[in-house]
Amino acid sequence: MLATVIHAARDIRLDEVPDPVLAGGRDAIVRVVAACVCGSDLWPYRGITPTAEPHRIGHEFVGVVEAVGDEVDLVQVGDFVIAPFYVCDNTCVNCRNGVSTSCLHGSWWGGDDRFGGFADGAQGERVRVPLADGTLVVVPGPVADDEIPGLLTLADVMGTGHHAAVSAGVREGSTVAVVGDGAVGLCAVIAARRLGASTVIAMSRHRDRQDLAREFGATHIVADRGDLGVTAVREITGGIGADCVLECVGTKESMDQALRSARPGGMVGYVGVPNGGPELPVRRLFNTNVGVNGGVAPVRGYIEELLPDVRSGAISPGRVFDLELPLADVAEAYAAMDERRAIKVLLRP
Amino acid sequence: MLATVIHAARDIRLDEVPDPVLAGGRDAIVRVVAACVCGSDLWPYRGITPTAEPHRIGHEFVGVVEAVGDEVDLVQVGDFVIAPFYVCDNTCVNCRNGVSTSCLHGSWWGGDDRFGGFADGAQGERVRVPLADGTLVVVPGPVADDEIPGLLTLADVMGTGHHAAVSAGVREGSTVAVVGDGAVGLCAVIAARRLGASTVIAMSRHRDRQDLAREFGATHIVADRGDLGVTAVREITGGIGADCVLECVGTKESMDQALRSARPGGMVGYVGVPNGGPELPVRRLFNTNVGVNGGVAPVRGYIEELLPDVRSGAISPGRVFDLELPLADVAEAYAAMDERRAIKVLLRP
Repeated sequence: MLATVIHAARDIRLDEVPDPVLAGGRDAIVRVVAACVCGSDLWPYRGITPTAEPHRIGHEFVGVVEAVGDEVDLVQVGDFVIAPFYVCDNTCVNCRNGVSTSCLHGSWWGGDDRFGGFADGAQGERVRVPLADGTLVVVPGPVADDEIPGLLTLADVMGTGHHAAVSAGVREGSTVAVVGDGAVGLCAVIAARRLGASTVIAMSRHRDRQDLAREFGATHIVADRGDLGVTAVREITGGIGADCVLECVGTKESMDQALRSARPGGMVGYVGVPNGGPELPVRRLFNTNVGVNGGVAPVRGYIEELLPDVRSGAISPGRVFDLELPLADVAEAYAAMDERRAIKVLLRP
Repeated sequence: MLATVIHAARDIRLDEVPDPVLAGGRDAIVRVVAACVCGSDLWPYRGITPTAEPHRIGHEFVGVVEAVGDEVDLVQVGDFVIAPFYVCDNTCVNCRNGVSTSCLHGSWWGGDDRFGGFADGAQGERVRVPLADGTLVVVPGPVADDEIPGLLTLADVMGTGHHAAVSAGVREGSTVAVVGDGAVGLCAVIAARRLGASTVIAMSRHRDRQDLAREFGATHIVADRGDLGVTAVREITGGIGADCVLECVGTKESMDQALRSARPGGMVGYVGVPNGGPELPVRRLFNTNVGVNGGVAPVRGYIEELLPDVRSGAISPGRVFDLELPLADVAEAYAAMDERRAIKVLLRP
């Protein structure tokens, strides 16, 4: 079959690779209907994370089950499924605590699983899914083609934006600032409104993303950054800063912006993968009682909660996909995201 | 009058100073009935925080109101009052948000207040209290002498331990580890039990403090630190770590102990004054979804909630005072705490 392999920085290829086969009784084989490129895929693409040797890439997909092992109970051949961006059993104590990204038996796409097998990357034609009963969520059919983008966001970005909001404690009437206007930041705007925020400030300098943030429910746009950005957020929030700040980038600058945009006693929910830091300035946090909560989003546990709102159209996170390409053009998909020509690219095998 | 002045590291004196007088309509003058020495007073005592010039010290006291300005409404001459370790108006937006330590008009004992006057340190015979209506909490009389230690803990350590527990989200059934066996750590044990924790692990290497922790409701004692301490906490908590960790020291080692003792998705509530760091390791927090929340404790807002339980004897935080001295012996009070001969020293003018 064909699957995406990163060979080196800016060297993305669709290569012929072995077809996946059931390696254990708890596996499933899923034919990929749609996959996508994640902001975090750009770290190796840009060479910020080194690529020592060629490896499979991609971790967001939806598809149709083609085969299941004899210990799989909850997933059947023919089911339309959403896979979160990681593998989990959904039954261990960490999963039960809502932290399935720390599943005691989990693993990551594109790497070896805990049982010695290889878990395919998601940007390919088929994927072997370990721990299929825990990992996959069945979407009751029929699934219309125009539902695909929205469902695909539940594999990562919509659940990750939601995790930022949940981690920051967004609730009815909260004032919220969102740092980052990528797909996760835009989904965080949706999540904040969905949880009842009365004020949602999207920090964005790009007109098209500002417009989408407004459509998603942002009440204010702040284009300034640094001191001016902090001042603008304070002006909107009665002079003190936001109750909740959702950090959806992961750089030193974005985290600093987030910490300084929170009011005394406020909470920063962060989901941007911190790339080489920054370490958090504990004394400043201490003096103002600003908390920091979040991390790699346990989206598996959010899919059931968010799915009805996606299917009913109450929220439209699928709109973050502003470019759709065939899998054959995966190299162009990376380039379009790298050059910010696209917010997020959907790939169809 | 007499009041405590720190002249340099390990040079604590009871000096003759001017009597305080009402400087504004919102002031009160309080005769100190009892004051105490705080763990944070030991930073300048030990020279870790430099003392550039002699200054007044102490920030915890209870006493009786001797005079009030003509704009004071809630406090009357003769009232027995508790003062938190800072000055606040209890009405600004930050106070209303429960973060009175960030009061827009507040200040600190022993320094200049926001109106240009001097706020006495608390280890003296009398104190001028700015913003008396906001700062002081009246204890309905009569107040028995044996109530004094418990009431005095509401000025700082009991409210601070409570803040650690609240910040970490302790609730019914939580597993909790407390790092630090000083007065705040011991009060954090009380607070965790009071909020319903089912497991409370006190990390302590001192037999007398272990015993007090058990009396306060600790279900387990862990004497190990570092990797062994983390392992011991995990063994007690089903292999994963504690839901909530209360960091009550403020050193790099204690924060590291706390972060590593939390389960994935757990929360560290911290109230130990971070002395020169550490910066928090964001990537490790991200990978495990461990949050960090807390800071300088807004104890003013907790006094009304905790007072009934202190007066009824439901909780006995006053037991952290294991040495009582006359104010004249304040230098010995500092030495006893510095040398760990006492957990916390109560001073009577």
